[in-house]
Amino acid sequence: MTQWIRVNHNGNIKFGTLDGGTISVYAGDMFDGPSPTSEIIPLDAVEILTPCLPSKIIGLWNNFGAVAAKNDLDRPTEPLYFYKPPSGILAPGGTIVQPESYDGPVFFEGELGVVIGKPCKDVSMAEVDDYVLGYTCVNDATAFQIISEDPSFAQWSRAKSFDTLTPFGPVIATDVDPESLQVISRLNGEVRQDYPVNDMFFSPLELVQRISRGMTLLPGDLITCATSLGASPMKPGATIEIVIDGIGTLSNTFA
Amino acid sequence: MTQWIRVNHNGNIKFGTLDGGTISVYAGDMFDGPSPTSEIIPLDAVEILTPCLPSKIIGLWNNFGAVAAKNDLDRPTEPLYFYKPPSGILAPGGTIVQPESYDGPVFFEGELGVVIGKPCKDVSMAEVDDYVLGYTCVNDATAFQIISEDPSFAQWSRAKSFDTLTPFGPVIATDVDPESLQVISRLNGEVRQDYPVNDMFFSPLELVQRISRGMTLLPGDLITCATSLGASPMKPGATIEIVIDGIGTLSNTFA
Repeated sequence: MTQWIRVNHNGNIKFGTLDGGTISVYAGDMFDGPSPTSEIIPLDAVEILTPCLPSKIIGLWNNFGAVAAKNDLDRPTEPLYFYKPPSGILAPGGTIVQPESYDGPVFFEGELGVVIGKPCKDVSMAEVDDYVLGYTCVNDATAFQIISEDPSFAQWSRAKSFDTLTPFGPVIATDVDPESLQVISRLNGEVRQDYPVNDMFFSPLELVQRISRGMTLLPGDLITCATSLGASPMKPGATIEIVIDGIGTLSNTFA
Repeated sequence: MTQWIRVNHNGNIKFGTLDGGTISVYAGDMFDGPSPTSEIIPLDAVEILTPCLPSKIIGLWNNFGAVAAKNDLDRPTEPLYFYKPPSGILAPGGTIVQPESYDGPVFFEGELGVVIGKPCKDVSMAEVDDYVLGYTCVNDATAFQIISEDPSFAQWSRAKSFDTLTPFGPVIATDVDPESLQVISRLNGEVRQDYPVNDMFFSPLELVQRISRGMTLLPGDLITCATSLGASPMKPGATIEIVIDGIGTLSNTFA
């Protein structure tokens, strides 16, 4: 397994592989044959950034058996999704900010994210794994009350759009079997979500396959696979961690 | 008025101002103090590209009085929007393609597009015009049947996401009074839409002001202001033109 990380080191943006407490810096393009350099940086000498810059962020709704059972939802026949804008991304360690124009609750939603590795469209299930670079932790934070504010139109886009509502990272872990993963969310140190990826209606690879039908996915694009039970509001001052074994801990605060 | 255009000239991507049948080429960044060069190219020697590359494309729903009256919709209290992915853009002259995985109707929707000129967030109505570079023609093409395919979740995102469903251009026209514009759509030469921008619930500048609350808009971002009456399906072989006086004609075919 490789863990790709992107960092700010003394004002220079670098990327490389995380090996315990150090980063082996690479040159070139993370998604197109990057080459190792001899530079090694200690992790505590850098500011961690999001591990990539997605051109699109696709968020799933109703993708967990447990959520559907609780809310009496049918199993969907196609992945049901919305977009979050790239302007909403937030690095590990950053602060999720309550939007000034919204005084309702902001929910955390701990999720597994799939990062696309190569341009793909109409990819088959047999090949889809070749087009995935790896997996990351996502907090699909949401200005929850906005979704249902207008009875004529569910405002998924606006509720998910504010700056800082899309923390992800700290790394992209390659060669992981996503079906074996467990997603844990800890609010102020207390476990609030703890669910298996294999409860998904559409597995991470099926999502890529189906979403790529007719739409080109690009290197760095992020598909965040929906959340399961336990997503809830954050209070100012909260620390929220999304933990996936083999990927790491995405920790952010809320203000 | 300036009309910014982006083109492929013998394999080189260039941008500049369109002056009748010629392009005065500029250097630098269209959005950050571009400088004129001495190069002038005839328009018929280039392939026209989309005039910019948006990091996000925001599409409005229910923003016209005539549409709301016909469909018995309330005037919304906030702009109601979805996203179209940047991977869906199509240059003037390009072919809108029926997605392989979808055999329902593909609608054209002629719209006015606002192009952001400078990063902005929480901008006031007094200042908002300074953050707009100009206006363009958009065809917000839509795989219409998908929107309502799942009764539990309106699939605006997927219906609007396929490659080639977002033609825009041919230019970004600056110093235009958007309220004075009329949007015309011609299907195979026949006028199908002909509506005034001033029938919008939220004017183009109000849209920028409201959408920027809590979300950073970036140079080149595109807000497409919704369509009015007359949007309808295209048949294979159709030519669809979106015409806005002072901006030009966006012409595409459908296959």
